[in-house]
Amino acid sequence: MSHNTFGHLFRVTTWGESHGAALGCVVDGCPPGIRFTRDDIQAELDRRRPGQSRFVTQRREPDEVKVLSGFVLDEDGVTMITTGTPVSMLIENVDQRSKDYGEIARQYRPGHADYAYEVKYGIRDHRGGGRSSARETAARVAAGALARKVVPGLVVRGALVAMGEKEIDRANWNWNFVGDAENPFFTPDPHSVPVFTAYLDGIRKSGSSVGALIEIVADGVPAGLGAPIYAKLDQDIASNLMSINAVKGVEIGNGFEAAKITGEQNADEMRMGNDGNPVFLSNNAGGILGGISTGQPVVARFAVKPTSSILSPRKSIDKDGRDVDVVTKGRHDPCVGIRAVPIGEAMVACAIADHYLRHRGQTGRI
Amino acid sequence: MSHNTFGHLFRVTTWGESHGAALGCVVDGCPPGIRFTRDDIQAELDRRRPGQSRFVTQRREPDEVKVLSGFVLDEDGVTMITTGTPVSMLIENVDQRSKDYGEIARQYRPGHADYAYEVKYGIRDHRGGGRSSARETAARVAAGALARKVVPGLVVRGALVAMGEKEIDRANWNWNFVGDAENPFFTPDPHSVPVFTAYLDGIRKSGSSVGALIEIVADGVPAGLGAPIYAKLDQDIASNLMSINAVKGVEIGNGFEAAKITGEQNADEMRMGNDGNPVFLSNNAGGILGGISTGQPVVARFAVKPTSSILSPRKSIDKDGRDVDVVTKGRHDPCVGIRAVPIGEAMVACAIADHYLRHRGQTGRI
Amino acid sequence: MSHNTFGHLFRVTTWGESHGAALGCVVDGCPPGIRFTRDDIQAELDRRRPGQSRFVTQRREPDEVKVLSGFVLDEDGVTMITTGTPVSMLIENVDQRSKDYGEIARQYRPGHADYAYEVKYGIRDHRGGGRSSARETAARVAAGALARKVVPGLVVRGALVAMGEKEIDRANWNWNFVGDAENPFFTPDPHSVPVFTAYLDGIRKSGSSVGALIEIVADGVPAGLGAPIYAKLDQDIASNLMSINAVKGVEIGNGFEAAKITGEQNADEMRMGNDGNPVFLSNNAGGILGGISTGQPVVARFAVKPTSSILSPRKSIDKDGRDVDVVTKGRHDPCVGIRAVPIGEAMVACAIADHYLRHRGQTGRI
Amino acid sequence: MSHNTFGHLFRVTTWGESHGAALGCVVDGCPPGIRFTRDDIQAELDRRRPGQSRFVTQRREPDEVKVLSGFVLDEDGVTMITTGTPVSMLIENVDQRSKDYGEIARQYRPGHADYAYEVKYGIRDHRGGGRSSARETAARVAAGALARKVVPGLVVRGALVAMGEKEIDRANWNWNFVGDAENPFFTPDPHSVPVFTAYLDGIRKSGSSVGALIEIVADGVPAGLGAPIYAKLDQDIASNLMSINAVKGVEIGNGFEAAKITGEQNADEMRMGNDGNPVFLSNNAGGILGGISTGQPVVARFAVKPTSSILSPRKSIDKDGRDVDVVTKGRHDPCVGIRAVPIGEAMVACAIADHYLRHRGQTGRI
Repeated sequence: MSHNTFGHLFRVTTWGESHGAALGCVVDGCPPGIRFTRDDIQAELDRRRPGQSRFVTQRREPDEVKVLSGFVLDEDGVTMITTGTPVSMLIENVDQRSKDYGEIARQYRPGHADYAYEVKYGIRDHRGGGRSSARETAARVAAGALARKVVPGLVVRGALVAMGEKEIDRANWNWNFVGDAENPFFTPDPHSVPVFTAYLDGIRKSGSSVGALIEIVADGVPAGLGAPIYAKLDQDIASNLMSINAVKGVEIGNGFEAAKITGEQNADEMRMGNDGNPVFLSNNAGGILGGISTGQPVVARFAVKPTSSILSPRKSIDKDGRDVDVVTKGRHDPCVGIRAVPIGEAMVACAIADHYLRHRGQTGRI
Repeated sequence: MSHNTFGHLFRVTTWGESHGAALGCVVDGCPPGIRFTRDDIQAELDRRRPGQSRFVTQRREPDEVKVLSGFVLDEDGVTMITTGTPVSMLIENVDQRSKDYGEIARQYRPGHADYAYEVKYGIRDHRGGGRSSARETAARVAAGALARKVVPGLVVRGALVAMGEKEIDRANWNWNFVGDAENPFFTPDPHSVPVFTAYLDGIRKSGSSVGALIEIVADGVPAGLGAPIYAKLDQDIASNLMSINAVKGVEIGNGFEAAKITGEQNADEMRMGNDGNPVFLSNNAGGILGGISTGQPVVARFAVKPTSSILSPRKSIDKDGRDVDVVTKGRHDPCVGIRAVPIGEAMVACAIADHYLRHRGQTGRI
Repeated sequence: MSHNTFGHLFRVTTWGESHGAALGCVVDGCPPGIRFTRDDIQAELDRRRPGQSRFVTQRREPDEVKVLSGFVLDEDGVTMITTGTPVSMLIENVDQRSKDYGEIARQYRPGHADYAYEVKYGIRDHRGGGRSSARETAARVAAGALARKVVPGLVVRGALVAMGEKEIDRANWNWNFVGDAENPFFTPDPHSVPVFTAYLDGIRKSGSSVGALIEIVADGVPAGLGAPIYAKLDQDIASNLMSINAVKGVEIGNGFEAAKITGEQNADEMRMGNDGNPVFLSNNAGGILGGISTGQPVVARFAVKPTSSILSPRKSIDKDGRDVDVVTKGRHDPCVGIRAVPIGEAMVACAIADHYLRHRGQTGRI
Repeated sequence: MSHNTFGHLFRVTTWGESHGAALGCVVDGCPPGIRFTRDDIQAELDRRRPGQSRFVTQRREPDEVKVLSGFVLDEDGVTMITTGTPVSMLIENVDQRSKDYGEIARQYRPGHADYAYEVKYGIRDHRGGGRSSARETAARVAAGALARKVVPGLVVRGALVAMGEKEIDRANWNWNFVGDAENPFFTPDPHSVPVFTAYLDGIRKSGSSVGALIEIVADGVPAGLGAPIYAKLDQDIASNLMSINAVKGVEIGNGFEAAKITGEQNADEMRMGNDGNPVFLSNNAGGILGGISTGQPVVARFAVKPTSSILSPRKSIDKDGRDVDVVTKGRHDPCVGIRAVPIGEAMVACAIADHYLRHRGQTGRI
């Protein structure tokens, strides 16, 4: 029972609001003996950090992580070694400017959680969305950086594959390009950069916003993770991805396409490989069958809606029940989906790390 | 930590295999004082039951539920009143014919969980898929029948909206038709019946199978259910739906469509209604904002892949690592998505019942 | 969150009332490949079964267990091998005689849960205590029989060490005598049998009841189980034992005695043993330090109160708020602590099995 | 599944080591609208703080709490109002002096968790006991200060009732005296102060230590909290108390005494009170029947062992398996039981707050 925790053996609890003093996470259940540096965590945070191009919010947050517990320092004075106790990480909020939000404190922004919060709790921290701010996702990214190290050989990568009406060309897929300094979009297709640039400049200048589609691929996932019924690996990946702000849909492997095709078209055939492991001749399943990983790459996609913080006035109501027109100023991302890439990676990494430990616990077969 | 349990306050644990003596569920946390009859449960099971048309498996299972605990009988001798203690329900397996499966005991059926199971556990019950059989879903439907009664005014309905390449026409949507005796597909569009009939007859006769798209709509969901971060109502609905066999994708409200549009197009505007409650001018959000219900209908869709049990031979390997061609005989559904409709309803009802109790627990505001 | 579940990786959910059709348990998370027979389970149930001597309730229940799921049969047709899926076990209620309870349906028996139930749920199954009946413990014993097989080399034994004012002489401790056919008390001290017999005959004939003190010893517990803070092995053993009906106190190792002595007296000194493992020179800690097992025998004791079902009239009130004098007839144990011995063993075995899997999950060091 | 979390709806996760940068807790599930000040938290921490008399460790820690999230400030600028999101609290470690511990880094102190840790994790933070340090309990006290405010009318108080061989005289019980500035022992008996003073001075000067017995009484607990089987209120109180460092036994109400007496002696009789509520004529049950609160005061006691950090050399081994004699220097409490009083109160308050929310969630009857 955990409103702010996910995972079972690799458990992540996050806390903090957009405009409080700080935010952070506690990672419980991390195996002992995992070696990492503060830079390993910071590097992932830097990928998610705001203010890096004109296409993301101009809020200036250094997002410097402090690792407060759960490790001993190795003799090099830099490498941290987990002790098996909870790893607490903290990120201070620096650039808060809460006055930006003053004028909409009493209004419910359409498409935002404002109204739902008010009904649920009877009280809310309107500044920057409070707990529902995307700043919370920094804590997930920090936890994910640790999760990546739990499963030997695991590599989790993500990419933006569509932005609004514009899609990448999968023939141009280049993982190395995703992190390129000239690539503000996490797109794997170099040819898409000018297209996305022009498109998003138009969106941004008009004070609008647009959605995106993100794909996460995990390589090196051992076969056997997950369980047949309510601990399916794909279920927990879907749950983790759906917990990201603004996500409205998740699919595994060929996903919604599977609804349209026949059993012959969908089934991934197998042959015995030279190395004694099976070779799958396709990967419609996205690396998961019956809820359990097969050793193929795990593939998930998720849809991010456009942020509702736009400059066009929208019809709404306020706390007193009066009809109002809302204009959301502030420094918002014209496409929040861009920064969702490292967040999605982190959430998939956490799901896999958790199932790795769960599988080992129940079966001892890893 | 629960491989075979879902929910937090309204908790459902299921057990049983396709070819064991029985299967069942234990519903824990049900509020006291809920009134129901065995017929309420049985009616839902009958909707899911195999053998009702030529379009679903011909396995003959009466699926008669026994309610073993957690209630006292009212004076009428029929109405059961929950006492707040666990409600255990049991369904015997009658028509097992496990010989049907004998020939594939050592083969891994492509698209099935066979290989993944073997790697995970080192042992599996190959008969009918064992635990991963769709028979397990009967237990969910029984639990869902109880969940529907937990939230006053809740109505959860589902419909098949596409089968393979064929879609319904939403202009013809008629909820009353979904349960019509002449409608073997749970389609809400009467005009779709002859189309689906011809299409699926072709699929069935060729020994093939096809996927489907299911939509679930929950009316009467109070505003305020869910939580901002890792207990989002949509997250838990997605998790529950993804746990259904063969589901490869889930979306809420406009779902993947949201990735393609702008903030202006996507935001559901609001006006104050005459009854003092807000009126939303659209429902792209699917009744959930920031993870919390708004009082609008909750809308979810999920994609069901075609069953991998098909008559066409498919390349695979066996336990000894030899290449084989697999033909899956037996009595399988040409479109497992059809029977997924009541299952999806049950899973959504359980998620809502759970969040209703969680919301009441934390806030006392219901 | 689990009102009727305990354990995390080795999870036991029980269900059923004293006077319903049946009771049972679902054991989730059991490792695959565990070999057991129905007789292994039944043998433990027979130790707990009522009606075996004049010192326990004369209710006649065969307590025959059915194992319904979670296994495949080995070729011998007798040995069950767990598959890693939930093991559901069911015991029918046979000898219910609910008329016995008719006269106290509206009265709150002092020392019983009657009043507390009514306030909590607003409804209760008064027959035989409903869910709070000691019959529920049969389900625990069945689960415990499986738990014993999860940890290689684990032996969990229990004994009654005091009954009311009478204590055993520890100098006479003989584990083999505990299960002796001439020993109706689970006492390890043969000399105590005539003492307990005379004492309890007096209690029984006067329609009274008496408490007892039970000791559980687990040998073969590997070092390293548990965790430093909120998953202490002793904490979870205490929690499990306190969940047994009528238990009012639990202690580990020297327990309450530790409050009275000095650090010099209490600390268990160590020396290196010939086999490369440390030798502890005493076991005040009861095999657990800092919440983690040390490899020494794990020792726990718990106090069972006298049953409140006695023939002497006691002052109470009824549902209408009237003062009444209550006499509890029926077939009750004059010392419920006797049958608590196999129950306590089961609960300790379950705690250890759970922590064995948890330790393996987090650390991989088993 | 939570090595460092307790509670279900009112959930507390703690983190931090004795010699790390800081320690803290995250309280999740706190109802919205709870009003508190930083001083409310600090006041409880001050009661537990080291260095306040010569009878507790001379480590100097201001233990100043920072509340980082989960609240909005009321207009007075001082009162915090919970928003229903996680409350993160942090306490910096100031006076660490880790050199004190250098000499025993390779030795296993008898009675400490050193050896068990090493076996479990293969690595440990030897400084000050790392995670198993009693400093962790500051985080519990902070959480408990918030828990106290969740249940209207709840008052949780504790007292030291015995120290080593010395007991208080219950005839002198005076709750007001417990917090008296002249009372360094949390004893409720003014006459016990000189006795304890002389006794503990002797213990302290000889470099020894001694155990203690603590009693916690919760008034204002509504009837109906808890559940019949595995969520018994007494079970969860016992679990919470057993999770405190050095606790070896827990009892509820008359506890172990119940094992020695008859049903007539033990049953708490009832009569109807003038206010329409039942009056219990005694409280052997400690306010809990069948796992559910009755409205009487909830009474629990726990035994704290003497700290193993003593100056007398004790036999042990080191990491290399060599026999050594260990002397534990440093600044330790001669009677750790003293400071366990506010910790025990906090843990009981948390258990009650959790069950208050759980009861409301399932039944809606509060």
